Amino acid sequence: MNVLVYGSGQLARMMYLAGSPLNINVQAVDVASKKIVNPVTKRSLKLSLDTAIENADVLTVEFEHVPELLLEQAEQSGKLLPNMRSILVGADRVREKHLLALAGIPNCEHEIITDIAQLSGITDRLGDKIIFKSSRDGYDGYGQWRISNADGLTDLAEVFSHLDLVKVPIVAETMCPFDRELSLVGTIGKDGNIALYPLAQNTHFEGQLHVSIAPAPELSDTVIAKAESIFKTLAKQMEYVGTLAVELFQVGDELLVNELAPRVHNSGHWSMQGADTCQFENHLRAICGLPLGDSHAQKISAMVNIIGVSSFSKNLIGIPGVHLHWYGKEVREKRKMGHINVTADSYAQLATKFEQLSEFLPMQYFPRLLTQANKLAKQS
Amino acid sequence: MNVLVYGSGQLARMMYLAGSPLNINVQAVDVASKKIVNPVTKRSLKLSLDTAIENADVLTVEFEHVPELLLEQAEQSGKLLPNMRSILVGADRVREKHLLALAGIPNCEHEIITDIAQLSGITDRLGDKIIFKSSRDGYDGYGQWRISNADGLTDLAEVFSHLDLVKVPIVAETMCPFDRELSLVGTIGKDGNIALYPLAQNTHFEGQLHVSIAPAPELSDTVIAKAESIFKTLAKQMEYVGTLAVELFQVGDELLVNELAPRVHNSGHWSMQGADTCQFENHLRAICGLPLGDSHAQKISAMVNIIGVSSFSKNLIGIPGVHLHWYGKEVREKRKMGHINVTADSYAQLATKFEQLSEFLPMQYFPRLLTQANKLAKQS
Repeated sequence: MNVLVYGSGQLARMMYLAGSPLNINVQAVDVASKKIVNPVTKRSLKLSLDTAIENADVLTVEFEHVPELLLEQAEQSGKLLPNMRSILVGADRVREKHLLALAGIPNCEHEIITDIAQLSGITDRLGDKIIFKSSRDGYDGYGQWRISNADGLTDLAEVFSHLDLVKVPIVAETMCPFDRELSLVGTIGKDGNIALYPLAQNTHFEGQLHVSIAPAPELSDTVIAKAESIFKTLAKQMEYVGTLAVELFQVGDELLVNELAPRVHNSGHWSMQGADTCQFENHLRAICGLPLGDSHAQKISAMVNIIGVSSFSKNLIGIPGVHLHWYGKEVREKRKMGHINVTADSYAQLATKFEQLSEFLPMQYFPRLLTQANKLAKQS
Repeated sequence: MNVLVYGSGQLARMMYLAGSPLNINVQAVDVASKKIVNPVTKRSLKLSLDTAIENADVLTVEFEHVPELLLEQAEQSGKLLPNMRSILVGADRVREKHLLALAGIPNCEHEIITDIAQLSGITDRLGDKIIFKSSRDGYDGYGQWRISNADGLTDLAEVFSHLDLVKVPIVAETMCPFDRELSLVGTIGKDGNIALYPLAQNTHFEGQLHVSIAPAPELSDTVIAKAESIFKTLAKQMEYVGTLAVELFQVGDELLVNELAPRVHNSGHWSMQGADTCQFENHLRAICGLPLGDSHAQKISAMVNIIGVSSFSKNLIGIPGVHLHWYGKEVREKRKMGHINVTADSYAQLATKFEQLSEFLPMQYFPRLLTQANKLAKQS
């Protein structure tokens, strides 16, 4: 089987490595240059995009922000999985909010701003603390803004006056307080079978995922059941095939959907060591029409992102159950360079391994590692 | 790190896949053409062998029968691991027998034939049933011959009269009856640390390995201790670095060394699913001077070779704990095309999974699968 992935970053790379044993040949499209490359070596395969599409049995994506013309061409080939609608839901917050409304799935209170006049009195409706997010990424002048009371609205109105809010609306959302962020990653086969990974607990720093722990500690059956029900409802609504990630805010026993990612997801990387079949292999199995593999947690697992740094002692892999996954990229500030997977027999042992890891790592790049170790040690 | 592997078959391929996450770039030498290729795609990397050696941090082998001139060039670079002596021990049965004698390690009774006159009365010394093996492979007219009594010696003398027995001697060995074949695969680090995989039980058919089960069922502590002692003695004698396989005949509680393989080994492929760190990753860790990973069995594991056939239902990966490893080669009679790894919670469950597998496979190519299932079911 030949699979063509839109996007040639680490997710395509890890798909390639997971696909080779299954005789699935993964090629990647660099969406900026339209070059077809080997996702590991990044060497050009000297193929046109048209030829690569023709050669491929399946097309898929490693990120949702594929330029629209490319995505339409992919959809028209009849080979794109997940379908374009699902990818656009991930790429466009307005579509995402519509889907959640349609499916009756709780999420933070919000308004979709298509006219600057909607800012008037918005803090009365959504509360003082609001986050404004452009519905789509990659447009000049767009981004994210936060206000902590109505005073912030004046500046915002000035910024928004330069934007075409009808073309690219803004989603204004209550900054809802939550206990923690969870994510549910799972894979849906062509036959509708679903392999769900356990809920992961995600810890961020400055907007980037730093640590995922799976299964998330202290999960109630209620929360697990709610998360699985949300996942299944969304997957069905989207007629989804492949690996899907649903990011959730936990508030008590309630769950609010934060975001959908129509692809393999950073919070599922632990599955490369912690599950019998990782999210990359299951994604490929699903889109190639093969039966899914076991997605249960075999141990307590964690994923620690390596961000913006490449010099540290590789001897950390001497800690039992610690594996390095390097993406082969040049180091840049805030860039995801690789990740470290850790498996353990208990949360307490995981805490100990985090502490051992800290001896090998420049800790300024891992600001959440020891705080997580402390929390885990207390919980267990 | 850059690692250059002599040999571009499935073992180099699996090293490549294991090395990528560690930022270890594995290139392979096709020893026939001296071309340097990507071990997965087999694409030529358009490098001369000299340049590839210069670029490499470490040279290693995926098979022991590397042409001598190439091997000497590799050794002279100062980058070859394991060392040339160890590789030659695997390539030359006379060297192997000398090493075993030197280390005082039991093996089948044998004589090294360098003169046809030695055949005289050999059945009185070694018994009626003797196997004659050329000390090295790849020489015209050489091979293996068996006799079941002294009558066979006349024909053998005729065959041997055409051979240069001084240049390439023959090892004549008693066909010693044994209970089963085991193998011990392990990895020795540069620092002398050793990560031993559990003993595997190997089942052959027509001279080819068909099924390995690890840990081997019904192992006594005595046998385990003897095997580990043999492994460590040999590794020390050879000053070995990397993954090494020792094939053993078990006779009661005794072990006889059958053969050494100075490389990753088919009977260790189960470790790709069954151990925290597989033999390929540990080989690379060792030769690159990195600490070794955990080699314990995490489950009951098996490896089933796919030999001489490529058409079967890939849906067999729907059996929980079953993984396919395909080598991407054109099908030929007796050719190893790939293998299937199976993990289970018990030997009884493994037996059941073998039976389930048989429903997906053309059984004439898997003559040992159901006999092994029956044995496992009885044992457990």
